[in-house]
Amino acid sequence: MPLLSPSRRLRRTPFSDGVEAAGVKAYTVYNHMLLPTVFRSVEEDYHHLKAAVQVWDVACERQVEIRGPDAGRLVQMLTPRDLRGMLPGQCYYVPIVDETGGMLNDPVAVKLAEDRWWISIADSDLLYWVKGLAYGYRLDVLVDEPDISPLAVQGPKAEDLMARVFGDAVRRIRFFRFGHFDFQGRDMVVARSGYSKQGGFEIYVNGTDMGMPLWNALMEAGRDLDVHAGCPNLIERIESGLLSYGNDMTDDNTPHECWLGRFCNTQSAIGCIGRDALLRVAKEGPLQQIRPISIDGAKVGVCDRYWPVTTRQGEQVGRISSAAWSPDFDTNVAIGMVRITHWDAGTELVVQTPQGRRDARVHSAFWN
Amino acid sequence: MPLLSPSRRLRRTPFSDGVEAAGVKAYTVYNHMLLPTVFRSVEEDYHHLKAAVQVWDVACERQVEIRGPDAGRLVQMLTPRDLRGMLPGQCYYVPIVDETGGMLNDPVAVKLAEDRWWISIADSDLLYWVKGLAYGYRLDVLVDEPDISPLAVQGPKAEDLMARVFGDAVRRIRFFRFGHFDFQGRDMVVARSGYSKQGGFEIYVNGTDMGMPLWNALMEAGRDLDVHAGCPNLIERIESGLLSYGNDMTDDNTPHECWLGRFCNTQSAIGCIGRDALLRVAKEGPLQQIRPISIDGAKVGVCDRYWPVTTRQGEQVGRISSAAWSPDFDTNVAIGMVRITHWDAGTELVVQTPQGRRDARVHSAFWN
Repeated sequence: MPLLSPSRRLRRTPFSDGVEAAGVKAYTVYNHMLLPTVFRSVEEDYHHLKAAVQVWDVACERQVEIRGPDAGRLVQMLTPRDLRGMLPGQCYYVPIVDETGGMLNDPVAVKLAEDRWWISIADSDLLYWVKGLAYGYRLDVLVDEPDISPLAVQGPKAEDLMARVFGDAVRRIRFFRFGHFDFQGRDMVVARSGYSKQGGFEIYVNGTDMGMPLWNALMEAGRDLDVHAGCPNLIERIESGLLSYGNDMTDDNTPHECWLGRFCNTQSAIGCIGRDALLRVAKEGPLQQIRPISIDGAKVGVCDRYWPVTTRQGEQVGRISSAAWSPDFDTNVAIGMVRITHWDAGTELVVQTPQGRRDARVHSAFWN
Repeated sequence: MPLLSPSRRLRRTPFSDGVEAAGVKAYTVYNHMLLPTVFRSVEEDYHHLKAAVQVWDVACERQVEIRGPDAGRLVQMLTPRDLRGMLPGQCYYVPIVDETGGMLNDPVAVKLAEDRWWISIADSDLLYWVKGLAYGYRLDVLVDEPDISPLAVQGPKAEDLMARVFGDAVRRIRFFRFGHFDFQGRDMVVARSGYSKQGGFEIYVNGTDMGMPLWNALMEAGRDLDVHAGCPNLIERIESGLLSYGNDMTDDNTPHECWLGRFCNTQSAIGCIGRDALLRVAKEGPLQQIRPISIDGAKVGVCDRYWPVTTRQGEQVGRISSAAWSPDFDTNVAIGMVRITHWDAGTELVVQTPQGRRDARVHSAFWN
């Protein structure tokens, strides 16, 4: 693994001191910020995540805050998901598209009030797109990046740990809903959400100064629950089919190609900037689409570039964008984009990995 | 130094194979792309850059291409620099500001034709701001990221090396001008520019497939010139006062705070979005400003967060955002933002470094 040169530009987070004390082994960079990737090892972290509870520094999920009378209109401009039925207190996963229908980000929208939203972003400066639109349309909104840093608590024991710190009321938060909770006198939004399928919460930590006090409180309260510092886990997220913007999709892809059609209501999403571009693909479907793919043989290496997916005869029909060895499913699990002619479950394909040609198979569903 | 987890999201470049073969020791991430930071050591790379010639993979300086009848209007909307006198064939360093006058990027604008520009960006997704404005204003332009990857050739022997590969005509390119040159049948823009003050060129490599052929041709042609793979050098860029977006400035700062007032013509930059916000600061000056600062004592550590700058009495009057030990000037050189009350050359200050309090001094000019 190469070394990463630290600099101010790769921003530390309110939790970085805790992350370092916990022995972080590697980082990635996400929204110009440090995101831990490994603590003990990717596989040890994976087993622990599925068995216990972890605290994740995901401050890099920066917020785009949109306030003002036109806030709702602006958020609907961003996405083909129909937001009319969305209530304050709800979180929606919203594909964000440009005027061509290309994905610009795949964040979670947090509706704080009719006139106040947070967009909890994946790795691109969505702030710039939102500010550009707000300015160009002369909308009556304020758009900025507030001092809010998400901290995730994930794993089967997450609820127990959270209840110890925030009280039993957290147990009543439903999936993709949030509530307001007090921590040391500061109001914090706590949502039942997170970038794993092991259950858990995301705390929108309100103020850099509250980062380490909350980190320490969670670590202290969870000692007998075997709480550990953790991070989004490559293996678990692939098993669970959690896509990664920049890895599995770019602005070349429509939401439908990304298998995110279920989050689109293109017909009724009046005002969505990409609506015209997406109407046809929403009706007729895309020509290529994300698929779960298993890759035979021993553990594959790091997928740091697209791996070509071909037929047995060598015709390219897709690409792999994420891959990892899954101990629980005893195979290499992968996320690929595959052409319509070869995307049916059970289709036998070949992947050109750094370890050579490997047989591979399209699955009907992700593993978790 | 921490480890960096590779992934597709941290894009490789057309030159990555060459960079790896040359023994790159560390990277940073810049515009979602790998940017080498060290080959032999930062200090060895520094001495070599000043004595010989280096080839730099700066593909991460992605291009925002703007084409169409409204291209010129759109570029002027982005910047308080007056572009009316700019001719095709010129490059301008252009501060980019939002409606509050806050810096969004500090790229080089390359005017290819009246209706075609490249904006060669620093580390932020300026594409999103430009696309948002173009869409909001219904401008008659196409905006995208083309397959163009800059490769820099920097150092005192850069011109000799470039002449061997592109012919003697490169010697006639003036500073911040460019010409079109052929390499293996492909047209390439070659500018006399680059992120060092050692002289040199940037080749806007046209097509990923041309990356390694050109890299290899330069390495081959420069053997007796002691050509090496290199990269923007932390020490040299601080000595030279070359600012780094995200390190030395953010969207909180105006160009005037960044000592970039000489690149602003706020009065005459009609159409610039931040013009109203900047008129007063352009006339009256800012309340804090970037300054060259020397820090006494032994070599300081890595500046990965702001270091407070105080008076001897402990009052905070600024911050350091970049710092390094300079072998040639036998002191720690640094870039700081200092309040008007304490920014005069010769002012004695104190910097809180990770190695403790250090005496420091404001300088009138950068070192190179």
